[in-house]
Amino acid sequence: MSFSIKRKINFYETDAQGVVHHSNYPRYFEEFRGEFLERLGLPYHKVREDLKTDIVLLTLYVKYKKPIKFGEVIRIEGDIKIKNKYFFSFDYKIFVGNDLRTEGKTEHCCISITNGKIISIPKEILERVGGVKK
Amino acid sequence: MSFSIKRKINFYETDAQGVVHHSNYPRYFEEFRGEFLERLGLPYHKVREDLKTDIVLLTLYVKYKKPIKFGEVIRIEGDIKIKNKYFFSFDYKIFVGNDLRTEGKTEHCCISITNGKIISIPKEILERVGGVKK
Amino acid sequence: MSFSIKRKINFYETDAQGVVHHSNYPRYFEEFRGEFLERLGLPYHKVREDLKTDIVLLTLYVKYKKPIKFGEVIRIEGDIKIKNKYFFSFDYKIFVGNDLRTEGKTEHCCISITNGKIISIPKEILERVGGVKK
Amino acid sequence: MSFSIKRKINFYETDAQGVVHHSNYPRYFEEFRGEFLERLGLPYHKVREDLKTDIVLLTLYVKYKKPIKFGEVIRIEGDIKIKNKYFFSFDYKIFVGNDLRTEGKTEHCCISITNGKIISIPKEILERVGGVKK
Repeated sequence: MSFSIKRKINFYETDAQGVVHHSNYPRYFEEFRGEFLERLGLPYHKVREDLKTDIVLLTLYVKYKKPIKFGEVIRIEGDIKIKNKYFFSFDYKIFVGNDLRTEGKTEHCCISITNGKIISIPKEILERVGGVKK
Repeated sequence: MSFSIKRKINFYETDAQGVVHHSNYPRYFEEFRGEFLERLGLPYHKVREDLKTDIVLLTLYVKYKKPIKFGEVIRIEGDIKIKNKYFFSFDYKIFVGNDLRTEGKTEHCCISITNGKIISIPKEILERVGGVKK
Repeated sequence: MSFSIKRKINFYETDAQGVVHHSNYPRYFEEFRGEFLERLGLPYHKVREDLKTDIVLLTLYVKYKKPIKFGEVIRIEGDIKIKNKYFFSFDYKIFVGNDLRTEGKTEHCCISITNGKIISIPKEILERVGGVKK
Repeated sequence: MSFSIKRKINFYETDAQGVVHHSNYPRYFEEFRGEFLERLGLPYHKVREDLKTDIVLLTLYVKYKKPIKFGEVIRIEGDIKIKNKYFFSFDYKIFVGNDLRTEGKTEHCCISITNGKIISIPKEILERVGGVKK
């Protein structure tokens, strides 16, 4: 996969089982997408302000293979897949060292901030995603 | 004090120390304020939509006297104090049974959703708060 | 489906898109499971303390059909399915009124709190789940 | 002040007012303390595992001077104050560029993980804090 981020686990992300609570993983995926867009030169707040576009989550899948503990540093690897002019997805793998702890997938589309309607993926994103993948 | 709510602790609110993480208490206070407004007949989403008013938090104080555990049911007692035409505060006490676990205070003002400027407390709130306190 | 809970949306669960942030849905599912166990007479903190058993999440799937807004009241309908002596799952549907907003599924197993090993589903749970389904 | 960290705002930390929800600030303070301990060579998970010591929050104070928006990068400056052999506090200031957005303070003590009793601040922490302050 073409891109990864590193991330410490925060104490407030743990639960009374002593490990990261499962509801934080979709947040890690969101952080990954944020860094991914930033790497493309299109930080999400710019997408929202300049392109008047919101990226919407349609489905979320997480496979929790092994727990993650406070004090561990995770590496999230992922990539985008453009399905057609409207829909795209991200795949994610979370590692601690070489140990695969989690796999995940999210599906998305774009909507206009102005009227909430589905719009085709902005060409600014499509062009740069093409560029990233080479 | 004139009003209280009951609330179960959710597992996702615990941390690896086995107790409620401290960042959840401001959320409990917010739930209290929400129920307080609802009891006044002014649910917060109506304040936002009908009065175009946001309630802003200026300061937060929490005194964590004893931890709260998963499986416990908390009772939040609190009251509003109108300081002047712009500013008001809430005091809170969190109990488990008769055991006082937490004290807190928040200070607030109102802003216009349209332009973000500070506005005087809407008379719809003032009138009803007066009514509640008798 | 055999069981449902009602739940107000908290302001702190919204995001800058003006709707419930997607990472809260797994928390709503967890609340549902908590109430489900309680209805069985087996609140989760008792499962943990008395049976020394943790319920672990293996997979999470959420289909976000329509957004949920602050001020709305959700009804979560769901049911448990026992797959075999080790594995079980929950299906969820989230409604606002009669409007289906979200579907979800989680898969689980049980582990011993003492040693972290997978154990068969405690008979206390199996018996009562059987009872609930009739 | 002697130490600072930088931190991007995550989208999931915003609320429907379009700014960072107030309950995230105590989490930023916790992140600051985590990095502070790490800089001392005493990461918090080591404090917990090696010294069998938990750091407990006694009071929290936050003054929200101006909102923080998605897309902004915050810089948290802070310092520790040792009050006596049991109690210590942290002061925090959150900046965006040179603009002071938030001030805060937390008070703490240490407890034994083994029995939950208050203990004096471990000398490993005291020595290094002394070192940091010179």
